[in-house]
Amino acid sequence: MADYSRFDATEIKKWTSDVFMTLGAPADDARMTTDALIHADLMGIDSHGLNRSTNQNYFGGLKSGAINAKASPEIVHEAASTAVIDGQNGLGPVASTVAMELAIAKAKETGAGFVSIRGSNHYGAASHYSMMALPHDMIGFSMTVGGLGVVATGGKGRRIGINPMSVAAPADSSDPFILDIATSVVAAGKLELARMKEMPVPEGWIVDANGASTTDPNDFWKGGAILPLGGMPSTGGYKGYGLSVMIDILAGVLSGGGFAGELRESMSSGGTCHFQGALAIGAFISPAEFKAIMERMIAYLKATEPADGSTGVLIHGENEVQAERERTLKGIPYHRDVVERLESFSKDVGVPLPAPVGVE
Amino acid sequence: MADYSRFDATEIKKWTSDVFMTLGAPADDARMTTDALIHADLMGIDSHGLNRSTNQNYFGGLKSGAINAKASPEIVHEAASTAVIDGQNGLGPVASTVAMELAIAKAKETGAGFVSIRGSNHYGAASHYSMMALPHDMIGFSMTVGGLGVVATGGKGRRIGINPMSVAAPADSSDPFILDIATSVVAAGKLELARMKEMPVPEGWIVDANGASTTDPNDFWKGGAILPLGGMPSTGGYKGYGLSVMIDILAGVLSGGGFAGELRESMSSGGTCHFQGALAIGAFISPAEFKAIMERMIAYLKATEPADGSTGVLIHGENEVQAERERTLKGIPYHRDVVERLESFSKDVGVPLPAPVGVE
Repeated sequence: MADYSRFDATEIKKWTSDVFMTLGAPADDARMTTDALIHADLMGIDSHGLNRSTNQNYFGGLKSGAINAKASPEIVHEAASTAVIDGQNGLGPVASTVAMELAIAKAKETGAGFVSIRGSNHYGAASHYSMMALPHDMIGFSMTVGGLGVVATGGKGRRIGINPMSVAAPADSSDPFILDIATSVVAAGKLELARMKEMPVPEGWIVDANGASTTDPNDFWKGGAILPLGGMPSTGGYKGYGLSVMIDILAGVLSGGGFAGELRESMSSGGTCHFQGALAIGAFISPAEFKAIMERMIAYLKATEPADGSTGVLIHGENEVQAERERTLKGIPYHRDVVERLESFSKDVGVPLPAPVGVE
Repeated sequence: MADYSRFDATEIKKWTSDVFMTLGAPADDARMTTDALIHADLMGIDSHGLNRSTNQNYFGGLKSGAINAKASPEIVHEAASTAVIDGQNGLGPVASTVAMELAIAKAKETGAGFVSIRGSNHYGAASHYSMMALPHDMIGFSMTVGGLGVVATGGKGRRIGINPMSVAAPADSSDPFILDIATSVVAAGKLELARMKEMPVPEGWIVDANGASTTDPNDFWKGGAILPLGGMPSTGGYKGYGLSVMIDILAGVLSGGGFAGELRESMSSGGTCHFQGALAIGAFISPAEFKAIMERMIAYLKATEPADGSTGVLIHGENEVQAERERTLKGIPYHRDVVERLESFSKDVGVPLPAPVGVE
């Protein structure tokens, strides 16, 4: 049996949007949320697309009422270059898209726009929002408070957020630079995989219940935690811990929403916070000059001699943009487990899933 | 023989400033540069204070003419919330202090101020500038292109910058949050120490000339390189690589200055670039509300159960602010090697070093 079925991007987008509307979301909100999820799938960030659409963050949340389908993001406070938006417990991508559009509009006027968002929900992949800045010749930023799964350096247990961040900057003929990283060493999904395969994980991924380094993935479920980027203190783990707290401050504290540690209970019902922004390149130097230097830098990095056994240096975003091109043409591959969930949900809501364009 | 002599902070500040003026710096420039260096020493960031004052970045550069003592930072371009400043190959802390003051002034008007700086030199500790935002109830940001010592993930050799970043945010009764981290795993100084002691370094610090992981510090001087934050690819080293490039973009590309890889030759003669900014908290939520949430977050983090063998979770900046209090009272301890260099230089320029207030 084939593991993956490919779906045409336009068709699966229409289906996703129809489901959101059937579940009560206005057309614009359905479009914004669909764009976020399918963009992640197109870029190969499969963990942040339709894979999670049926859970409480998206379809499931609208169905159960955990997420308010009729919410309208509210601008709580505003200055020339800043704003706070309250997502009113609506779909995360709605408040986040509105916020990023506002940041871009402010950056057009003043050179910089930064918006902190509270009362939101899961927003998909951070790079979806940072990339919105690119066609405007802007550098885009997006961060979000994420699930509480990470140990604070020196402590025990899961006390800080996975808290990812993304920064996107345009180049000229080359693909843009798109950084999209969690501030933890790994995502929980990789531990699940190691546990299923009964394989040890690399040193520096997790600690056990005592806060000691371990390579047994089972320890994560026995009171352990993921390490912040950098791993144990000797390899700079306190830096990843600091980056995670920085995101709590910009997204959670600055919006008035809180921080990962106290938001954990409400994360799927309006307890998620984000921080997004844009810097207009033309408010610094000419975009043409900026892009010319970007091209020099990208060429320089790509010219690095590969490490033994490596295929060479990649630019952040390179794989994702290539995946987006390929999947736009050939369709998006979904694992049969995902397809089963989507099919079951499609029957539930009476919106038939389109036929796959291929299997592999 | 005592290893350390303590000098009164006010006396050593006056001496440092007098030396800068004797070497041709205007009084304001001498003050700004002295503040940056002595602030680092007060906070215990000994690698970024008077320890390096005699080299080409500071006293030595003015003496040799590598740095222009009469340079005046020029605003090349400006918008309501942004600017580019050219340091004109003057002392790094001069352009950087002027830039941060400009960012703060812009944030007072619009809520956000971001300045990209080119044509500068070594600027000391990044946190000196991010902390300038604190008394204004702002969040401060400071980044700089640093020395080329880090391997780009997948490659060989030293291709990207140490590129540090700092973010500072105020609390209420607690000390502020002050993140100040290099985007590499460690500083070169720690490798030097390990080499001298003939000790192996932890796995995940460096690679050898082939780009392979090694624990022999000597490999760093045989064509090796420091790893980016996260270490090897399996523990997320590509994330630190991306953060380093992000800083190249914000400081180097956005200012029109370049990037670490092409600036390496000119780093001590006007080839350094920085990026600094401020967000006015009151342009988002009330500073009182912000600080109340900061207090809750700090209390929560400090309440984390310590890992076995650890003294518990620290807040970033906690040690530095404590050091600043202690050293302001008791004097700044300088290692005898540093004192010897300062004494020799003081004779050279005819500005007598003050007497130490204690030895230990």
